[in-house]
Amino acid sequence: MSERGKPNQRLGNNKRDELVFMALGGLGEIGMNVYLYGYGPPNARSWLMVDLGVTFPHESEPGADVVLPDLRYIVSDRKNLAGLVLTHGHEDHIGAVLDLWPSLECPIFATPFTAGLLKLKFGEAERKSLPVRTIPLGGRFQAGAFDVEFVGLTHSIPEPNGLAIRTPAGLVFHTGDWKFDATPVVGKSHDVAKLQSLGDEGVLAIVCDSTNAMRDGRSASEADVAKTLTKIIADAPRCVAVTLFASNVARIVSVAAAAHKAGRTLIVAGRALHRIIEVAIETGYLPESFTYLDQQRFADVPRNKVVVLCTGSQGESRAAVARIAEDEHPDISLDKGDIIIFSSRTIPGNEKAVGRVQNGFARLGVDIVTDADALVHVTGHPRRDELKDMYAWLRPKIAVPMHGEALHLRANGKLARACGVKETLTIVDGEMLKLWPEPASVIDEAPVGRLYRDGNLIVPDAEGPVKSRRKLSFVGIAVVSLVLSRRGEVLSEPGLVLEGIPAADSDGEAMREVVYDAIDGTLRSIPPKRRSDAAMVQEAVQRAVRSAINEAWGKKPVVKVLLSVVEARG
Amino acid sequence: MSERGKPNQRLGNNKRDELVFMALGGLGEIGMNVYLYGYGPPNARSWLMVDLGVTFPHESEPGADVVLPDLRYIVSDRKNLAGLVLTHGHEDHIGAVLDLWPSLECPIFATPFTAGLLKLKFGEAERKSLPVRTIPLGGRFQAGAFDVEFVGLTHSIPEPNGLAIRTPAGLVFHTGDWKFDATPVVGKSHDVAKLQSLGDEGVLAIVCDSTNAMRDGRSASEADVAKTLTKIIADAPRCVAVTLFASNVARIVSVAAAAHKAGRTLIVAGRALHRIIEVAIETGYLPESFTYLDQQRFADVPRNKVVVLCTGSQGESRAAVARIAEDEHPDISLDKGDIIIFSSRTIPGNEKAVGRVQNGFARLGVDIVTDADALVHVTGHPRRDELKDMYAWLRPKIAVPMHGEALHLRANGKLARACGVKETLTIVDGEMLKLWPEPASVIDEAPVGRLYRDGNLIVPDAEGPVKSRRKLSFVGIAVVSLVLSRRGEVLSEPGLVLEGIPAADSDGEAMREVVYDAIDGTLRSIPPKRRSDAAMVQEAVQRAVRSAINEAWGKKPVVKVLLSVVEARG
Repeated sequence: MSERGKPNQRLGNNKRDELVFMALGGLGEIGMNVYLYGYGPPNARSWLMVDLGVTFPHESEPGADVVLPDLRYIVSDRKNLAGLVLTHGHEDHIGAVLDLWPSLECPIFATPFTAGLLKLKFGEAERKSLPVRTIPLGGRFQAGAFDVEFVGLTHSIPEPNGLAIRTPAGLVFHTGDWKFDATPVVGKSHDVAKLQSLGDEGVLAIVCDSTNAMRDGRSASEADVAKTLTKIIADAPRCVAVTLFASNVARIVSVAAAAHKAGRTLIVAGRALHRIIEVAIETGYLPESFTYLDQQRFADVPRNKVVVLCTGSQGESRAAVARIAEDEHPDISLDKGDIIIFSSRTIPGNEKAVGRVQNGFARLGVDIVTDADALVHVTGHPRRDELKDMYAWLRPKIAVPMHGEALHLRANGKLARACGVKETLTIVDGEMLKLWPEPASVIDEAPVGRLYRDGNLIVPDAEGPVKSRRKLSFVGIAVVSLVLSRRGEVLSEPGLVLEGIPAADSDGEAMREVVYDAIDGTLRSIPPKRRSDAAMVQEAVQRAVRSAINEAWGKKPVVKVLLSVVEARG
Repeated sequence: MSERGKPNQRLGNNKRDELVFMALGGLGEIGMNVYLYGYGPPNARSWLMVDLGVTFPHESEPGADVVLPDLRYIVSDRKNLAGLVLTHGHEDHIGAVLDLWPSLECPIFATPFTAGLLKLKFGEAERKSLPVRTIPLGGRFQAGAFDVEFVGLTHSIPEPNGLAIRTPAGLVFHTGDWKFDATPVVGKSHDVAKLQSLGDEGVLAIVCDSTNAMRDGRSASEADVAKTLTKIIADAPRCVAVTLFASNVARIVSVAAAAHKAGRTLIVAGRALHRIIEVAIETGYLPESFTYLDQQRFADVPRNKVVVLCTGSQGESRAAVARIAEDEHPDISLDKGDIIIFSSRTIPGNEKAVGRVQNGFARLGVDIVTDADALVHVTGHPRRDELKDMYAWLRPKIAVPMHGEALHLRANGKLARACGVKETLTIVDGEMLKLWPEPASVIDEAPVGRLYRDGNLIVPDAEGPVKSRRKLSFVGIAVVSLVLSRRGEVLSEPGLVLEGIPAADSDGEAMREVVYDAIDGTLRSIPPKRRSDAAMVQEAVQRAVRSAINEAWGKKPVVKVLLSVVEARG
C-alpha cells in the first residue's frame, strides 16, 4: 500500500463500492474506542464514526492526564465524514469528543442521556456548543450512506445502544458495550424479539463486545446487586459508605432505595456523582424528587442513619473515598464498626491504588466489603452464554470481535466460530477490513496512535514530551553551562545542574566533583584555538560528562551543554 | 520517646529484662521482610534479625531497580546484633543481604538450600564470602540471648522454616512463609507432632504469615498441580512451554517428570532457572542425573517432543517468556497450536505486564493456560483453615500477624482472636512491641524507610534522586543559562534547555519563544546596576520562566538558572 494512511486515494482503478470497517482504538487494548465504517468506492467513501473515547495512561506515560486516539487518518478525509454516533456515555466511548471534535466538525448523534452528559462536559469547559442531534431511544436516522437505528441493550449506564447500520451492502450490527439483563433497575431490558427480527432481516456482520469472552456462564443482574446492598445496609450497625462508578445510575437508585428502606439519609460526596445525578434527573432516570444531602451535612446526621455515596472506586488519590480512607476528608470520617462497600470492579492497572485505599480503611478498623465477599457488583459485559444467544439470534455471516485486548478478541472470535458464524475476523487497530463484497479480508492499514492530554495541551506520543519525561524518570539530567571567549578562553567557572542523579555521597558533592573533573579534563584536552568550533566542544563535554556519570552510577543520564561565546573586549 | 530511633539508650531507669519484637519491613506491605527480636534490659538488648529481603519499586519510584529496607535503627546498635537468621531463600527474605550485610557484619544462619542460593549470589557479584553458618534441617543454635530451632514447614521453595525462638521470657514461634502441604513434591511435609509438641512446651507468642488470611478453606497441594501439568503435557498436540517462579523447585520437578512421562525433552530458558537448578542439584533436591537441554537446542527437537521451562511469569520485559511472546527470542518460537502454561500467580502491580505478555501469545495463536483455567499453580501461604490448625496446635498467648498489607494483618489478627488467642496485636513497621513481661504493648517506635538500588548505588528515598526523577516525570525541566558582566550587562544570548515540556506547536518553537520572552522581560525589568545581586537575578528569571510555562502549559516545571558572571575587560 504505497499510499498507506491516506483515505480515498488508493492506487488502482477499483471503482466498485465496498463496505469497510476499522478501528482507530479499541481493538487490542481496552478503552479508547473509536470505530469507522466506510461505504462507497475506495476513492470516495462515505464515513461513519462510532464512539470517540479515551483511556488511562500506562505507567510508561508519566504525567499524561489521559490518552486520546490519533485521528489523522479520518481528519484528512473529514469532508466525507457523515457523522459521529455515540453508543453510550462512558468515558472510553465519549471522553475524547471535547478535545478532538474540533478537528472533525461533523454532526454528532446520541440518545438523550448520552447527549446530556456531553453537553454538560462542554458547558463546564465553556466550549462552544456542539451540533448534537438527540435521537430518541429506538430512533433511526440517515448519515451519509448509512441508515442507523439505535437498538436498546443493557449495560452499566443508562441508554446503552447497539446500532443496526444498514447499507446497500447489508446490515451490520455494532453492539456497543452490552449484556443481557432482564432486570436492569433503570431503563428497559434488552428486546429479544427485536434482535431476532434483525436476524430474520439478515445480518451481514456483527461487531461485538469481547470484554468477558473468556468468562463462562451469564452475568448476574443489577437487581441482584440491589438485593445484596439492601441487606447489607439494613443489617449495618453504624455508618455505611458505598463507592461506585459514578455513571452507574442503576446502582445509585439501588443504594438510595436501600437507604430509604433502612430509614437512612443519603449523602453524596464527589463532583462526578453530582453531575451524573443532575443529568439523570433531567432525563428521567431519577425522579425530580430525588433527595440527598451534600457531604457538608455528614456531621448533622447520626452515624447509623446515613448512607454515603462516594467517588473513587478505582483508588484515585484525590477522590472522596481515598481521602476518607486517609482520614483526610474535610467532612466525612469513618471508623471502627463502619462499613465501606466497593460496589465496583478494579480496572486492570489500578490494583495497587485500590489496595492502598482498602489498606487505609483496614487501619481505621472499617469493615470492607468487595465483590469478592458479596454480590455488590456485576459486570456490564456479556459472558459466554450471553454471547452465544446474541450469535444465535442474529445469525450473522461475519463476526468481528471488538472492545478488548488480543486475548479477549481471540476468545470471542473462537466462540463465534463455535456458534456457527462462518467468517470470524480478528483484526487490530488500524487494519481496514472489507466486509463486502466477499470475501471479507484486510485490504489496507491506517496510521493509529496515542495522543496525550498533558496539562492543557494535546501532545503527540512519538518523540513528544511524555516520552522525554519517561526517559528523565529513569536516568535524570545533567546540564552544563560554559562561557568561552571568541579566542576560546574559559571566562567563567562552568555551571552545572544535576537533577535526578545520585549525589553518590552524604554531603552531596561527590557526583558534582566527578562531573567538574570531566569538564575540566575535556577542556584541557582541546587547545583554545580549536574551541572556536562550538559544536565540537559541546559534544566533547557532553560525551565526557555522560561517560563520567555512567562510570560512577551505572546509568547514562540525558546530558545537555549550553555554550555561550562572549565577545572578548580585552 | 525523646530518644526515638536510638536503640539501647532509652530514658528512665528501667533495667528489667524485656522481650521485644519489631519489623523494619514486612508489616504493612508485602515484601521486604526484616524482623527483629530483642532480649534484655532496654539499655542493653541482645538482637536477632530474621530475614533481610527486598521488594519491587512502586510506580512512584521510577528508575529504582529494587527497594531495600532502611536499617539505620539496628546498624547503630550492631555490636549487640547476635545474628541474622534466614527462614528461606525467596528474594523478599534474602534479597537485601548482598547490599546491606556489609553494614551489619553479623553471622548469618541458614539451612543448606538457602545458604547455597546466598553463596551463589555473592559469588556472581564477586563479593567477599559471607560468614554463613549452614544449619541442618531441624537444627538448633544459640545466637546471643536466643536459642533458635529451625522447624521445617512447607512453602513454594525448598527448605521453608519456621523458627522456635527460645528466650528466658518464653518461646516465640516465628512462622516464616508457610502452608500445610501433605504432598509437597520435594522435601518433607510439615510435622504436625512437632508443632503440637511446641504447643505442649508452651508458646508465648506466634508471629504468623498473613498473606492468605482473607481466603477461606485450605490451599491445594503441589502434588495436585503436578497431576494437572502431567495431563496437559500428555495431551498436548504440539510444543508446551511453562513459565514459573524460578525458585519453585517442586514445580521444576513436576514439569520434568511430566515431560519424561510424555516422552518429551526438557529445555530450560533463563538464567535464574539455571542458577536454581544448580543449587538444587548441589543440595540434593534434584538428582545428579537431572538432564535438560539449553535453549539453543530448541530447533533440534521436534516441536511435539519438547517442554520448555522459562522465566518471566511476572511479565518482566527482558525475560525469556516475554521475548517468546513478542516472537523475538533468539532460539525459541511458539505459534498456533502450541501451549503456554502460566504456572504462577500474578503479583499485585504486575497485572498489566503479564497481560501484555499473554496478549502477545494470543496474537501468535498460542493457547494460554493460567490458574484461572486449571490447577496449574497453588499458593505457598496458609488459607484460613490452615491458620486455624496452626493456632490450635500451638495455643499461643499472643499472636502478631506478619507478612502482609494492613488488610491481611487485620484479617489474620481477627482470625487468631476467633481461634481463642487472648492477645492479638496488629502492629506496623517500626513499632516496637514488648511481648514480655505482661502486658504486651507497643513501647517505642524506630525509624523505618525505603532505600533504592539505583544503577550501582544505594540511594535514600526522602529528597533522593528517585523522588527528583518522579517530579521530572510529571513536569519536566527548564534550564536557563545567563552570562552577565560585572557591570550587569548581558554578554550573550541566554541558553535554554527544555526537556519533557511540550513544544506547544508543530515546529517546536512556540514554548521556547514563550520562555525567551519571559527571560528578556525579566532582565529588562532589572536595571544593570542591580544585577550584581546574582541570586536575585536568578530567582527572578526562574520565577518568570516557571510562570510563563505554567501559563502556556498548565504545569509548573522544575526551573534552574545558571548565571555566569564574566570579568568585563572593556
